Amino acid sequence: MNILIYNEGVHDKEEWMKKVYPDGIHGALKQALNDLGNITITILDDVEEIVTEECLNKTDVMLWWGHCAHGSVPDKVAELVHSAVLKGMGFIALHSAHLSKPLVRILGTSCTLKWRDDDRERIWVTAPFHPIAQGLPEYFELNQEEMYGEFFDIPKPDDVIFTGWFAGGEVFRSGCTFSRGYGRIFYFQPGHEAFPTYYNENVVKILKNAVKWASSSVRREVIGCPNVQSLETKQ
Amino acid sequence: MNILIYNEGVHDKEEWMKKVYPDGIHGALKQALNDLGNITITILDDVEEIVTEECLNKTDVMLWWGHCAHGSVPDKVAELVHSAVLKGMGFIALHSAHLSKPLVRILGTSCTLKWRDDDRERIWVTAPFHPIAQGLPEYFELNQEEMYGEFFDIPKPDDVIFTGWFAGGEVFRSGCTFSRGYGRIFYFQPGHEAFPTYYNENVVKILKNAVKWASSSVRREVIGCPNVQSLETKQ
Amino acid sequence: MNILIYNEGVHDKEEWMKKVYPDGIHGALKQALNDLGNITITILDDVEEIVTEECLNKTDVMLWWGHCAHGSVPDKVAELVHSAVLKGMGFIALHSAHLSKPLVRILGTSCTLKWRDDDRERIWVTAPFHPIAQGLPEYFELNQEEMYGEFFDIPKPDDVIFTGWFAGGEVFRSGCTFSRGYGRIFYFQPGHEAFPTYYNENVVKILKNAVKWASSSVRREVIGCPNVQSLETKQ
Amino acid sequence: MNILIYNEGVHDKEEWMKKVYPDGIHGALKQALNDLGNITITILDDVEEIVTEECLNKTDVMLWWGHCAHGSVPDKVAELVHSAVLKGMGFIALHSAHLSKPLVRILGTSCTLKWRDDDRERIWVTAPFHPIAQGLPEYFELNQEEMYGEFFDIPKPDDVIFTGWFAGGEVFRSGCTFSRGYGRIFYFQPGHEAFPTYYNENVVKILKNAVKWASSSVRREVIGCPNVQSLETKQ
Repeated sequence: MNILIYNEGVHDKEEWMKKVYPDGIHGALKQALNDLGNITITILDDVEEIVTEECLNKTDVMLWWGHCAHGSVPDKVAELVHSAVLKGMGFIALHSAHLSKPLVRILGTSCTLKWRDDDRERIWVTAPFHPIAQGLPEYFELNQEEMYGEFFDIPKPDDVIFTGWFAGGEVFRSGCTFSRGYGRIFYFQPGHEAFPTYYNENVVKILKNAVKWASSSVRREVIGCPNVQSLETKQ
Repeated sequence: MNILIYNEGVHDKEEWMKKVYPDGIHGALKQALNDLGNITITILDDVEEIVTEECLNKTDVMLWWGHCAHGSVPDKVAELVHSAVLKGMGFIALHSAHLSKPLVRILGTSCTLKWRDDDRERIWVTAPFHPIAQGLPEYFELNQEEMYGEFFDIPKPDDVIFTGWFAGGEVFRSGCTFSRGYGRIFYFQPGHEAFPTYYNENVVKILKNAVKWASSSVRREVIGCPNVQSLETKQ
Repeated sequence: MNILIYNEGVHDKEEWMKKVYPDGIHGALKQALNDLGNITITILDDVEEIVTEECLNKTDVMLWWGHCAHGSVPDKVAELVHSAVLKGMGFIALHSAHLSKPLVRILGTSCTLKWRDDDRERIWVTAPFHPIAQGLPEYFELNQEEMYGEFFDIPKPDDVIFTGWFAGGEVFRSGCTFSRGYGRIFYFQPGHEAFPTYYNENVVKILKNAVKWASSSVRREVIGCPNVQSLETKQ
Repeated sequence: MNILIYNEGVHDKEEWMKKVYPDGIHGALKQALNDLGNITITILDDVEEIVTEECLNKTDVMLWWGHCAHGSVPDKVAELVHSAVLKGMGFIALHSAHLSKPLVRILGTSCTLKWRDDDRERIWVTAPFHPIAQGLPEYFELNQEEMYGEFFDIPKPDDVIFTGWFAGGEVFRSGCTFSRGYGRIFYFQPGHEAFPTYYNENVVKILKNAVKWASSSVRREVIGCPNVQSLETKQ
């Protein structure tokens, strides 16, 4: 399996963040997914060079983490990723990637929400039958996580696998799946850059499950709009 | 109720089409919807002038018919319509508007399908409980209609109200609803420019039902992404 | 509009409950809905007598509250209600009616959940575009309410209009809609018999909105399974 | 994998049917699925003896074919199957099993439809991204198949994988998936007893795909309704 990880990698260069993620968020994600296949990493600095149509054609699942630099991602990259998803590439949008160019293009809504920097989250499994929920307890806790609260302006998900409870009083659809074209999409809310969320064993399990699930899409060309002959000779 | 009808109005100027739609497709749509409220018409020639943010703020439902001139619609217009839908404007995309800029932006998929110029369609009601299906027989026929066939690359609709059977052997999800943001969207497949579809009494009934249904969305501002205080003092 | 309220009315006869609901829960519901139409009340004692096929044929929406006496409701009554819903009667199941015979028959799942007697709930609007959410703030609070927690074993709702946050740490899909046959169904979680929930102004607004929404179903006979002739003479 | 096939096996004993299915429909299904796992067969004559709770606990996927003898299936069997599905057993209902006791209990609607004995069907893939559609062409034909036509009174499916076009003029949601509790359900329309449908290579592929898909449900006990302690000490 070919996995492509995009992390904007901006704050990752600062000391306060290196204390939490010494190898960047991309490093933590790579570590989590290492035994699932070949992993390619790209950051904002090289995203235009790495994320080509050829690269995406070979990619089974792409993960996307971005926060402060959504606007700096070239439109062309967002367009290529969008197009690859419709042709069956799995796509996993993490945390503040709710506002990333590819996800907003794919979902077509504002993807807005409420937020607060530092809170405590309890994540409930609300679709225990789903492959992404396998092996998880009925809930788990993140002692520090950025609060994301409803109303979350997204199209109706196929499944809301996780629902977040925040100590500050909010709820959130913290894990949502979507199908678009031939592609499978998963949005997962936890993962603020200041907290060690991506080392949490349940989060790692979810990321692995999600990569496996999203990679099982079929790869096909979009059909275009062919002009076809009648199939009935008798009409 | 304020209804805004966009018809690109290109073929409408040609003699062959004037025989079917002497006042253009916009004229036929206006006639169908006349007793529901105030109707404003815009065509490609004046779309940039008419379709402003101010105009859309006052519009309850917009209908969109376009075919050969999708590419000539300014991106700015598509962006304004998309944004108005998320804030609760109803939107009805007709026939080849499946590839119109606003609908493709809203749905986020390729919206591709198969087609054949001249066929016969029987339209089945497959969600008889839906307001858009009220007053209709269990099926009705269009003796001439352009065939649109599956696979239709759209996100999963909220309801597939009509399913088309074509004499040439295809099926199609001919009437589909979606919710995005605060807006209600209806896509309706029939309406080729060479056939008098928009004079059909069942089609007129569907258009009226759809306008009423889509106009009952709420108008609200998108929430943005506010940074909010904790609601729990005890945490 | 004809509204039928079923409340089992068992605890309602005890002193502790009379302090909260002097006229029973059915009395509080009647008061909330009084200006919407004609209201008929039935309790366990007379349910078999009142809830006949003739009565249900004239009913636009039925509300159901039950808790300790689900098992005492005659199967025949559940069967009649189930059948009326499929023919387009609106049905609103309140609080512990998640385990009522009619709802369990309609939904076909176990409808199980977690619970705890006394908690505090904050109810978030998670489908602000839905008619049932109109006129409500983005959240409201119930200082005392029984906690119902996920996993709630129901089929995927059409819309999750309300999501509950509980001070004790749980979340719940507190307001869910479903379509079955020609009928519209709404499940609403708040309403423990020991707390004055049905006097809360937001709850009253929700009940009214829900009754209006559920009553707009069409009434039709289920089609049966007719043996039909071919519609195509040429085949 | 343990596969359990129920075929009522009534007409199968008659000469006219033996010409099409010499080993019964159960024999044809067994042949189609033979290389996927251990197959157990039960017919109406022994269904009460074979379909026990113990048997279902070990079954990954159950297939059900029935037509003229739905009423003779003991309620206890339907109840056990229903309960096993909620605990994660896959369930595949074939053709006239739309009216089988287990499916009607699981779905909670009338499951009625229109029908005509002898027609020709073209089956279109309308969810090409779904595992059950893998390896199939965009459509395939059955030269003889019983027509089942809309409106099909079922709850909204998770996915409508196949849509049937009939030469006689009808359409049908011929392949539908549902989730209930922890179980995955697939309804597939083709399979009239008088035609050799279950020998068609595309139908065989669909059955295999469906068995694999449905077997990947998790097996869990339904949670019951536990009374739980608060998770928050501070409340």
